[in-house]
Amino acid sequence: MIEPIPLPDPSVPDPPDFSGWTCPMPLRDHPNVVMGHGGGGQMSGELIEHLFVPAFANPVLAGLTDSAVFELGGARLAFSTDSFVVRPLFFPGGSIGDLAVNGTVNDLAMSGAQAAYLSCGFILEEGVELSVVGRIAKDLGTAAERAGVIVATGDTKVVDAGHGDGVFVNTAGVGLVREGVDIRPQRAAPGDVVIVSGMIGVHGIAIMSVREGISFGTEVVSDCAPLNGLVAAMLDVTTDLHVLRDPTRGGVATSLNEIAKAAGTGIDLVERQLPIPETVANACSFLGLDPLYVANEGKLLAVVAPGDADAVLAAMRAHPLGQDAAIIGECVEDHPGLVVTRTAFGATRVVDTPIGEQLPRIC
Amino acid sequence: MIEPIPLPDPSVPDPPDFSGWTCPMPLRDHPNVVMGHGGGGQMSGELIEHLFVPAFANPVLAGLTDSAVFELGGARLAFSTDSFVVRPLFFPGGSIGDLAVNGTVNDLAMSGAQAAYLSCGFILEEGVELSVVGRIAKDLGTAAERAGVIVATGDTKVVDAGHGDGVFVNTAGVGLVREGVDIRPQRAAPGDVVIVSGMIGVHGIAIMSVREGISFGTEVVSDCAPLNGLVAAMLDVTTDLHVLRDPTRGGVATSLNEIAKAAGTGIDLVERQLPIPETVANACSFLGLDPLYVANEGKLLAVVAPGDADAVLAAMRAHPLGQDAAIIGECVEDHPGLVVTRTAFGATRVVDTPIGEQLPRIC
Repeated sequence: MIEPIPLPDPSVPDPPDFSGWTCPMPLRDHPNVVMGHGGGGQMSGELIEHLFVPAFANPVLAGLTDSAVFELGGARLAFSTDSFVVRPLFFPGGSIGDLAVNGTVNDLAMSGAQAAYLSCGFILEEGVELSVVGRIAKDLGTAAERAGVIVATGDTKVVDAGHGDGVFVNTAGVGLVREGVDIRPQRAAPGDVVIVSGMIGVHGIAIMSVREGISFGTEVVSDCAPLNGLVAAMLDVTTDLHVLRDPTRGGVATSLNEIAKAAGTGIDLVERQLPIPETVANACSFLGLDPLYVANEGKLLAVVAPGDADAVLAAMRAHPLGQDAAIIGECVEDHPGLVVTRTAFGATRVVDTPIGEQLPRIC
Repeated sequence: MIEPIPLPDPSVPDPPDFSGWTCPMPLRDHPNVVMGHGGGGQMSGELIEHLFVPAFANPVLAGLTDSAVFELGGARLAFSTDSFVVRPLFFPGGSIGDLAVNGTVNDLAMSGAQAAYLSCGFILEEGVELSVVGRIAKDLGTAAERAGVIVATGDTKVVDAGHGDGVFVNTAGVGLVREGVDIRPQRAAPGDVVIVSGMIGVHGIAIMSVREGISFGTEVVSDCAPLNGLVAAMLDVTTDLHVLRDPTRGGVATSLNEIAKAAGTGIDLVERQLPIPETVANACSFLGLDPLYVANEGKLLAVVAPGDADAVLAAMRAHPLGQDAAIIGECVEDHPGLVVTRTAFGATRVVDTPIGEQLPRIC
């Protein structure tokens, strides 16, 4: 049972009147925010659909893609934002600074955009060591250089001890979209081929292993990486990529469900074709998790026309971040809006969107 | 004495090595983050200059203006970000939702840019009422509509109870800069006239009155407002505005000091010409504060060539948000980098940048 936090502050002399504000269904079942609202699953989706979209109502946001695409001053731009609240701040393979750059660079890349400029907002908790802030800033600068993006503007706020958690980082990014590129979940169509760029589940297991202090034999290192170069290599093969998605919070399962629902197509996965590292498979079996739901920070899903699949796959495998790329399924006319996986024994099961989160504060 | 927060998490098996990282002077005096690092004064400046700028080193950021200005795809864009941690979330005259829109719209306007698209990142604390989040989102949407800007993309994260403070909001914004406009602090020059768009100190006193439960006779209502329309009206008179600045954290004194230092010019203020509401003057005298250091959220400072001053002032006074605009001083060759005010008795005093903050979490 979560105790409600008494907000707004009772010292406000004229407290705002909420009497006219009704929480639309299905949020009414949860009068307070719970961790699941930030997990990227069904509850996150409800919050966006029933609370944020009506408040900000506009056609750009209604697309609900990883990044917004629009024309401004004659340029075709993509724009995206992400806040980072990962715990711990440093983990094998990266830090919140790396995530803050790669997360936004990748969200832009999923619209086919090349990130150009990032903004960076820090919310620091009073008492955190400046050396920690400095190390994060350095990681952020190094990751930006690796991704070829410029940190152009920033902001720093400090909150009193006990009202934050060391360091939170927000980044937003602006990028250019190539001529003729039209990448969005609605474009998935029956017959299209589903490709994943590499081994799945690594980031989530890396975070879990350090946070819970569980060792799985070999150290699992986060796959956190900028995917803009890989996407550029894919676009060099064809500008007609239908859908791109980076399966972060909620993993491959959640991203594929979003695509299936947005496009009204079914998706069939072949379980044995999913590239899952042995360490991740072992950890998941030990923890009772499904690798399909575990977060990735350096992988992408691509949905492409069947005629483009071989060439796109070859281009991906030729890129350092796509060496383990594999075809994992296809879009089908059957069961529109549903993702179904065929197991090694020939059985099928529905891969649903999770309600909340498997592991909070993963990014 | 602030207890250091033990970070990074000791459960990390391979803790990052900070041994090679030395905190550059003058930050070395403060091994931990203190509230003053977020106050917009000297300590904020040191954090930016000695920690963030070296980490992100690039010519765009080095300008250190409210927003970055660059060319992308042939368009001349401005880009800016701000995080909002104000307490309480709702206050007379607005809420964190209004601030989140107007803060970023105004940062863009201070480069002469018309805000077009905003991103919006929420960091919610587990347990906060959804009705509070809903009300903030609604305020944000309403403020965006008033400012004529589209909320194009967003993100929501949830942190465990006790590791956040209800609601934090980050916004970033992209806007178009008019042809021929070149507004930046370095352009202030001796002879230029300094104008303020209206009554100062109102936002800070409004927040303080509700937070401390102090009544100052009449209720003080925040001046939170979008300044893009006022700036457009000023640019219609002349595109040769030299400097614009919204005096938020740290107030008019801090903004003028930044301008004086960036341009290497002196600034002389005439104290009796400062438009200060009686309620703010009374509250400041009661609390021992100087209105020059109190935050504003709907005011701007303009530095213009002497030949443009009368026309710009007239255009400002014709706009609803500039009715009380006044000339408050001028740039001088004397005392370069310093702001000096002439009191009613003919004495002068140096108006320095504050070290930390008068009132934390003001925006």
